[in-house]
Amino acid sequence: MRTYLSCIPCFVRQTVEAIKMATKSKARQKEALRKVLLKLSTASFDRPPTEIGYAVHKIIKDITKNDDPYKKVKARDNQAAMKFYSYLKELIASSDDRLLVAAKLAIAGNIIDWAASPEFDVKDTIDEVITQPLTINHFAQFRNSLDEAETILYIADNAGEIVFDKVLLEELAHKKITFLVRSEPIINDATMEDAKFASINKLAKVETVKITAKGLNTTSNRFKHFVDEADMLISKGQANYEALSDMEGPIFFLLKVKCPLIADHIQAPLGAIVLKAGGEK
Amino acid sequence: MRTYLSCIPCFVRQTVEAIKMATKSKARQKEALRKVLLKLSTASFDRPPTEIGYAVHKIIKDITKNDDPYKKVKARDNQAAMKFYSYLKELIASSDDRLLVAAKLAIAGNIIDWAASPEFDVKDTIDEVITQPLTINHFAQFRNSLDEAETILYIADNAGEIVFDKVLLEELAHKKITFLVRSEPIINDATMEDAKFASINKLAKVETVKITAKGLNTTSNRFKHFVDEADMLISKGQANYEALSDMEGPIFFLLKVKCPLIADHIQAPLGAIVLKAGGEK
Repeated sequence: MRTYLSCIPCFVRQTVEAIKMATKSKARQKEALRKVLLKLSTASFDRPPTEIGYAVHKIIKDITKNDDPYKKVKARDNQAAMKFYSYLKELIASSDDRLLVAAKLAIAGNIIDWAASPEFDVKDTIDEVITQPLTINHFAQFRNSLDEAETILYIADNAGEIVFDKVLLEELAHKKITFLVRSEPIINDATMEDAKFASINKLAKVETVKITAKGLNTTSNRFKHFVDEADMLISKGQANYEALSDMEGPIFFLLKVKCPLIADHIQAPLGAIVLKAGGEK
Repeated sequence: MRTYLSCIPCFVRQTVEAIKMATKSKARQKEALRKVLLKLSTASFDRPPTEIGYAVHKIIKDITKNDDPYKKVKARDNQAAMKFYSYLKELIASSDDRLLVAAKLAIAGNIIDWAASPEFDVKDTIDEVITQPLTINHFAQFRNSLDEAETILYIADNAGEIVFDKVLLEELAHKKITFLVRSEPIINDATMEDAKFASINKLAKVETVKITAKGLNTTSNRFKHFVDEADMLISKGQANYEALSDMEGPIFFLLKVKCPLIADHIQAPLGAIVLKAGGEK
């Protein structure tokens, strides 16, 4: 996916958010913002948004001398999400279709995304997503794939969200699951620390993969190894969709459509909740 | 008012909106966006937002070779607003306090602001504003000032909105009113053409004032002349508030708070509707 003109205001908005979290120094905040603006003024829009995003966040980290500007946000999101854990479990226990509700909750968790929107209301989101129909609904295929799969590669998205992934993982506890997180902090993406906070390491083998300047490193041997080992992939969120939309299946994308460009690509309106089957393996 | 870091994403968002309206040429759109980003990367944040905004929109006009990118938007807003004219008149006719309702409607009109938000729903806005209490409510002073004033300087804001100003002007038809618009197109600000579209020239003497690189030219002899002639000033919208908040009174600011920085300055929350008395003359 290339970078659209409409991505640029979003990068600048993210930058202002991130620099305020990264440092209290007004001078460094300004310097980082100026460097990002300068970088964006010459960036190739033919490159994917993830690549420009990586460059933007690298500038912010370098100039503010803060390797993890979203550290507090992630901790807050994790803790906020954890408060809803027992509510999520109740919803699943009282449902007619545990897997469907768990999958929908994993999608609800995807709304907790500081990078796309600074505002969210967890309870409302949960209740809304549970009652809202999936706009792209490949749940039947999802269930069939799960019935056949022994090994699953689950590609995580954000901190906070992973508590919602956990309740889906618990429904799949009889499978051999690899849970993939980022090897180092980038925006509010989940890392090993977040997975451990949510005790996901007790349900799955948590592994890391690098985010390179080109985004999720899907061409690395390490990533390919995880894919080869898995009978089925579950991909959370928009950035993973961007990186993996062309991948061979069975792969399922669980996400909320938050960006008009993703909406255009995935063919679902803004705000839609999606469980979409990707290409056949 | 100085420029805050949070103003910068807003300028970039406005730029992307404006360039898409200004030209179909992707190459020129990109060139204009790059030049704006470069300009912002070195702009002095100690200068007021209006000054940076002027520079931004000058770049867009120059590179896209379109002197009035918002021309269609303004025509659309004027026409959309005019459809509600008879509804506005009904609301006033059926009210217990014509002046209060007319003033509130003038504030409702302030929500039609393409520069701040591309989305608005005229009918909902009207009904909401009519029932919503003024967060800053200096209406009693406003009424008293009007009782005493013979000559009024009314400083207009946007196209579309001026149809809502018109119904307030009609309640003041026994006064001598000067209605001030911008001398040339800048964003969606009302110009002489818009005032004539709404037939405001039949209710008031429509005059123009230049927008310079420093924003509304409040130090020009021309502007001072209009101020000196008036017993009272009515100022619409956020940009005029920015330019005139330190002015001697009697001056009244009618606006909807749409920007967190204005909210901070005027001491009213985002979304608040405000009728605020300024400094005494």
